[in-house]
Amino acid sequence: MSAKRVEVSVAQIAHLKGLITGSVSTVESVLDQHGRDESAHPPIRPAAVVTPKNTQEVSAILKYCNQEAIPVIAFGAGTSLEGHVLPIAGGISLDMTDMNRIIEIRPDDLLVRVEAGLHRMALNEKLAKDGLFFSVDPGADATLGGMVATGAAGTTTVRYGSMRENVLALTAVLADGTVITVGRETRKLSAGYDLTRLLVGSEGTLAIITEITLRIFGIPEKMAAAIVVFPTLRDGVEAATAVVKMGIAIARCEFLDPISIRYVNAYSSLNMKELPTLFFEFHGSPQGVEEDANSVKEIIAEFNGTDFQWAKDESARRKLWQARHDVHWAADAANPGKRGFSTDMAVPISKLADAVETCEKILASHPFPYSVLGHVADGNFHLHIFTDPKKPQELAEIIKISHHMVREIIAMGGTCTGEHGIGLGKIEALVEETGSAAVEVMRAIKKRLDPMNILNPGKIFTQ
Amino acid sequence: MSAKRVEVSVAQIAHLKGLITGSVSTVESVLDQHGRDESAHPPIRPAAVVTPKNTQEVSAILKYCNQEAIPVIAFGAGTSLEGHVLPIAGGISLDMTDMNRIIEIRPDDLLVRVEAGLHRMALNEKLAKDGLFFSVDPGADATLGGMVATGAAGTTTVRYGSMRENVLALTAVLADGTVITVGRETRKLSAGYDLTRLLVGSEGTLAIITEITLRIFGIPEKMAAAIVVFPTLRDGVEAATAVVKMGIAIARCEFLDPISIRYVNAYSSLNMKELPTLFFEFHGSPQGVEEDANSVKEIIAEFNGTDFQWAKDESARRKLWQARHDVHWAADAANPGKRGFSTDMAVPISKLADAVETCEKILASHPFPYSVLGHVADGNFHLHIFTDPKKPQELAEIIKISHHMVREIIAMGGTCTGEHGIGLGKIEALVEETGSAAVEVMRAIKKRLDPMNILNPGKIFTQ
Repeated sequence: MSAKRVEVSVAQIAHLKGLITGSVSTVESVLDQHGRDESAHPPIRPAAVVTPKNTQEVSAILKYCNQEAIPVIAFGAGTSLEGHVLPIAGGISLDMTDMNRIIEIRPDDLLVRVEAGLHRMALNEKLAKDGLFFSVDPGADATLGGMVATGAAGTTTVRYGSMRENVLALTAVLADGTVITVGRETRKLSAGYDLTRLLVGSEGTLAIITEITLRIFGIPEKMAAAIVVFPTLRDGVEAATAVVKMGIAIARCEFLDPISIRYVNAYSSLNMKELPTLFFEFHGSPQGVEEDANSVKEIIAEFNGTDFQWAKDESARRKLWQARHDVHWAADAANPGKRGFSTDMAVPISKLADAVETCEKILASHPFPYSVLGHVADGNFHLHIFTDPKKPQELAEIIKISHHMVREIIAMGGTCTGEHGIGLGKIEALVEETGSAAVEVMRAIKKRLDPMNILNPGKIFTQ
Repeated sequence: MSAKRVEVSVAQIAHLKGLITGSVSTVESVLDQHGRDESAHPPIRPAAVVTPKNTQEVSAILKYCNQEAIPVIAFGAGTSLEGHVLPIAGGISLDMTDMNRIIEIRPDDLLVRVEAGLHRMALNEKLAKDGLFFSVDPGADATLGGMVATGAAGTTTVRYGSMRENVLALTAVLADGTVITVGRETRKLSAGYDLTRLLVGSEGTLAIITEITLRIFGIPEKMAAAIVVFPTLRDGVEAATAVVKMGIAIARCEFLDPISIRYVNAYSSLNMKELPTLFFEFHGSPQGVEEDANSVKEIIAEFNGTDFQWAKDESARRKLWQARHDVHWAADAANPGKRGFSTDMAVPISKLADAVETCEKILASHPFPYSVLGHVADGNFHLHIFTDPKKPQELAEIIKISHHMVREIIAMGGTCTGEHGIGLGKIEALVEETGSAAVEVMRAIKKRLDPMNILNPGKIFTQ
């Protein structure tokens, strides 16, 4: 956080304007909008917002910024939860959202090629016309480039994988402006180092992603959602892990604690029971869905699950998942004037109930309101903790508490982040988790590929 | 291939002996055994075969070899098909097979930790006692470290993924002896660069893998295999791609051409019809398997598939897949005195029939016997071509033909290797496929992590 701030001169901004057909803005409201994300990190304005129209323009911008040592921070939807888009060392925000074309849809190969600034919901709207969908669903309407950069995952990852499994190929621009293409349109690939997976989750620090080839799926014949409640959190979590261990092909499996349910009820005008709740979704043939659901019902009964309730129809199903996805905003709405802090830890599935209980024990000795939800079938859970933004010491305290929880989770074989990434807040945790030798390898790769350290400096590790 | 050969002195070998409790051998038969693989590349003896007992010994060996600039080539089962284990620049063979412990089996987390020299069949024998299995099945009884290094895949990849999707975490030793741990035991992970995936498929050029955490699965309640024949190769391939596009969860889907069937019939005493044939396997509940099989039957009928025939029981199922896996050796047995050359290309699935036809057209103008088989549901296929080892010009010609085919496949959006890797033979093809800028990134990473170029030099790219 102590990176020194690079100033960008008026002449440099003028030069950038000459490099591209897209806009270069220094309007305050635009700078403000690009200086914040959904995290609790305080906003920081970039010196300018530069909006390229194509890969060549990205290349020209990077080449110039590399010469001038101007930091470049890619910006999509600004939905990061770890401060990824904050220009902590100054520099420009590279707004990718004008590069939002669907280049081609290939139903026969179950793949699509898009520009990085396309939003995932816009893609899915278009794909639906062909009976297809792109599976990764982090809730927020992120851009696909942002989802590649943060290695996004979400509610359907248990069935369809995260970005890591769904990105086939990329076009990306290196710090010096060199354009590379990595990966292929094939399902299998064994040709040299897996640079695709190196860029997925690299948080804008190794290259700017401009084009993406993604796997897509046929919309299942039948999709059905259901909820079920449990007397305790442990029952619910253990039921979910039992379902996973049985190998039942659930499409989604989400846990919400009673407080999350209360938030969601208020925000989405629902009247679910305020109890530990699992949300399920099943995809397949009508017969397969029924069979899966019956297996799940049997298992949850063993864990004291009751009130298994189907979403009545497609509109009820959509409403249910919208409510689940809105829980972040529902929590914010229920805590007016407060600032939410979202954690993101994951453990091996057998340790999930212990992990959540450990975190709750830690939080119990503090005054901050919090709620729990999780992609339980993946062992990944979030705590949503609220502080008073007028009392900055509260945020400092939450950061300490979060770090305490992370240390406990790491000791259980878990990770400090299942899907949000390292960004600004988990730099220390990464070292504790994977060891300084492995972080040194990351740093070595970064230094070699971005020797001027212009690409999103100060994220993932200290430079 | 023109890398200059490093000589290893008697004193250096004596020093290596002092570093470890395991053996250091210069016995000719041992050197011979470590100087060849299953590829057509001519064998090259290492200077010594060094067999470490643990990660610390690997570290000590690498630290010394790095100081002395002695190349180190990891060796597992020697089943590579691309010359990976050949010490083309001299140096030592690091035989990992004494590091073959199963460190822990964690049924509740569906993961296992093993040492890199463990063979996959030994692992599966042990896991079967707990009703579990490790899914990646390349046919050969490779070591798991070798499978990580080459990013192995196989017949079940269509359902369970390749090594890329099944490796959770690794312990590895860098060229200078530094031990790193990468990845976690969690299903989701977003903590920094994906060094795990960087090492998977790095062909021994970035680090020596010593310990591996793998995903495992419960053995499905029901596994059933079936074969079906088609009048033409195109019918068979198109039937398979139609099955994939429908999203039917097949566990295996393999294509064999009539010549492969003839080889297999002779080698395994079977009497399958010598026609283009698909081998299927279904995993799931009895009801689910039946439903999947019925869907497949409907589709294949549309593509003139006939004679759908179940393997009668578990022993027939095993025999069928053993026969499929033995096709490599069955082909060798049917061509006595000849040397087999195995290609490995993959295309987007819609182009598979065209791709195979293109290759057959190229081969038709040459006198070499060949057969075709493929992991068709992944768009990945192999040609097994025979030359006379007494006529080295034949191998040179095959290499030219192979390169010609690879260029056509790349032009279709395909890859020069779906699962065998680059090794020695596809260095040029990799550049054609992904471009020199991306290969330059690979080279930069290699140079940074292995500045003395001791780790399997001369593979993947020229140094």
